[in-house]
Amino acid sequence: MAAEIVNPRSDSENRDASERDGGAAPLESFDPAFALHRGGKMAVQATVPVRDKDDLSLAYTPGVAKVCSAIAEQPELVHDYTWKSSVVAVVTDGTAVLGLGDIGPEASLPVMEGKAILFKQFGGVDAVPIALNCTDVDEIVETVVRLAPSFGGVNLEDISAPRCFEIERRLQERLDIPVFHDDQHGTAVVTLAALRNAARLSGRPLGELRAVISGAGAAGVAIAKMLVEAGIGDVAVADRKGVVSRDREDLTPIKAELASFTNKAGICGTLESALAGADVFIGVSGGTVSEPAVASMAEGAFVFAMANPNPEVHPEVAHKYAAVVATGRSDFPNQINNVLAFPGIFAGALQVRASRITEGMKLAAAEALAAVVGDDLAADYVIPSPFDERVAPAVTAAVAAAARAEGVARR
Amino acid sequence: MAAEIVNPRSDSENRDASERDGGAAPLESFDPAFALHRGGKMAVQATVPVRDKDDLSLAYTPGVAKVCSAIAEQPELVHDYTWKSSVVAVVTDGTAVLGLGDIGPEASLPVMEGKAILFKQFGGVDAVPIALNCTDVDEIVETVVRLAPSFGGVNLEDISAPRCFEIERRLQERLDIPVFHDDQHGTAVVTLAALRNAARLSGRPLGELRAVISGAGAAGVAIAKMLVEAGIGDVAVADRKGVVSRDREDLTPIKAELASFTNKAGICGTLESALAGADVFIGVSGGTVSEPAVASMAEGAFVFAMANPNPEVHPEVAHKYAAVVATGRSDFPNQINNVLAFPGIFAGALQVRASRITEGMKLAAAEALAAVVGDDLAADYVIPSPFDERVAPAVTAAVAAAARAEGVARR
Repeated sequence: MAAEIVNPRSDSENRDASERDGGAAPLESFDPAFALHRGGKMAVQATVPVRDKDDLSLAYTPGVAKVCSAIAEQPELVHDYTWKSSVVAVVTDGTAVLGLGDIGPEASLPVMEGKAILFKQFGGVDAVPIALNCTDVDEIVETVVRLAPSFGGVNLEDISAPRCFEIERRLQERLDIPVFHDDQHGTAVVTLAALRNAARLSGRPLGELRAVISGAGAAGVAIAKMLVEAGIGDVAVADRKGVVSRDREDLTPIKAELASFTNKAGICGTLESALAGADVFIGVSGGTVSEPAVASMAEGAFVFAMANPNPEVHPEVAHKYAAVVATGRSDFPNQINNVLAFPGIFAGALQVRASRITEGMKLAAAEALAAVVGDDLAADYVIPSPFDERVAPAVTAAVAAAARAEGVARR
Repeated sequence: MAAEIVNPRSDSENRDASERDGGAAPLESFDPAFALHRGGKMAVQATVPVRDKDDLSLAYTPGVAKVCSAIAEQPELVHDYTWKSSVVAVVTDGTAVLGLGDIGPEASLPVMEGKAILFKQFGGVDAVPIALNCTDVDEIVETVVRLAPSFGGVNLEDISAPRCFEIERRLQERLDIPVFHDDQHGTAVVTLAALRNAARLSGRPLGELRAVISGAGAAGVAIAKMLVEAGIGDVAVADRKGVVSRDREDLTPIKAELASFTNKAGICGTLESALAGADVFIGVSGGTVSEPAVASMAEGAFVFAMANPNPEVHPEVAHKYAAVVATGRSDFPNQINNVLAFPGIFAGALQVRASRITEGMKLAAAEALAAVVGDDLAADYVIPSPFDERVAPAVTAAVAAAARAEGVARR
């Protein structure tokens, strides 16, 4: 067909002209990431043939009219006869993109496309970047509600805290499809999986562990909630001003809620002082932790220094004192990578047409992910590789089963 | 990779279970259109490899961060390094879907997916269905403006008149990417192309022809405007109450505007009375025209009876009186099919990053489309087949050149 001829991205003549004009060539000449990103990283494809007029009369008019009428009469058929139940909107407002901060919707698109292709590659889930040029909570919520008929799920991405919490909560109330802020829950699921395995390796139940989280943003808050739900002994969360505790008078509503269910020990003061005697450090702040502070942790501690690209403490330093060390980086063992969770979580939720993603589904995902490691468990292997092909099917099956058990599955 | 294993659409176990439960199997057993639509008609695919951690470090973190930063500093780079400049949102509110009317956003999705795969197949343009669950003009405009950063163009589809006119106009004012209501302009472009060739065949200049259009909705209004711009002698448009004329006191603002530049002859009365002596009939109403009315047209008339599935007058009847007959159906010669226009129009506009689609670009598309017929011109061949591989490249090139000539191209 004509597609190859007229694809606007394969227009080499125009591309050459643009490069001669001093367009993007200089960027591509010094970095392979730019060459790879030329023209974007994703495309749409037809999954049915459109070769001749018979094909067209089934896939388009007049055949399509019967399918439309059937859905109009029986709305749930939209899941059977459209791509709705396999497609997720990856929604951002570009306010908290990677470590780059508020760079706006257009500049966030390379990350959203990356997310979309990871959804496809690892979960078989179709995903479409939707980068919004509004940052007001009401506007984002209304916009997503309005476009929701086209999608089977909504993955919120790189929306800054504390707005991300309210946006997610209100969308979950308004929509009957899964809404999931991956920066919160994906990170929490993978962190819990790694922690479960670290605890198994050292023979210690979660209930005996005291954890300290550096960072009270989207990831820190979600990890704290999940660890408490999973039965951790105690968890304290530190922001830039120190440990979040009920005594502090400068807390936002989110942090005040955090204070209500964390820090049973009533720790006050700095992050580093809280680390003295702690069993687990979880860094999602982008800050740093000194070697003496790591040294002050309990014997056999776990250090998850997940800031990217610079872990809060270098893994080599952490290894001097800790029994298990994990980071967010692919060039060290035990990479805490969200891609281990979100593709399977959405694939499982979509498979059973879950109306939402419950706490039980997330806990099931963490357990399934931890279980993939199996008997190969070791200090440098508490979490599987993102490229372990067992991961997504295991998470998918566990999430689907949990959705059924929790009564949110619709098939 | 794991994609094949966990793709929610290929979950045959669940599908069997759903069918046993009386899900969709009965529909599929009596109509191949349902079988074809199972799971939808489209998917997303990665266009870059994600096989290992080196791939991931370029396509996602950390490599992607440099690309994001570059776009943040130099916003126009979003066209070079994301799929924005090859992807179009196919936006509907489901209020005027085919001949089915206001069936809502979910039920419209099969049509929007069909449109999306035609964009890809015929124009190499990626397209994403966005079916909105709001019908208020302000809400639709705001929503599309908010999600526009993700897209290189907006194709409005199956939005009922007269809201479609205002929505398009306001979006064109607010956005710097092409906004195109295909039900209006796509239909007009293809109709003009067929009319140009019919006139060429009969050796008559457009300026000598008097046309009557049945239908004053989206398509009728747009065709009337375009024929006037192309230099037709006169055109009269009839709605259900008769010919739109300056004398009528029941006109909406859109129809009052129509009256101001059409019907120079000052015809009043019914559609059929206006056909007496007319050279061209263009039906986009879904109504019917009697045989005597067709017989009353001028010698060598052109009858374009484009209602689907039932033409306003059966082609066999029209052939008794008319020199050229066209329909909207694929099973008769001369099919006036929008797919001849919209893929190439968007491909051309995206290729040069046009900020809008001008009248000149649409006229150029019609001329290029008409020219494909070339020396093979005949009464049963005034418009090419949708499967003619010359069509999309010709339209694309003409639209891109016109965009440059009109100063709306940005490369």
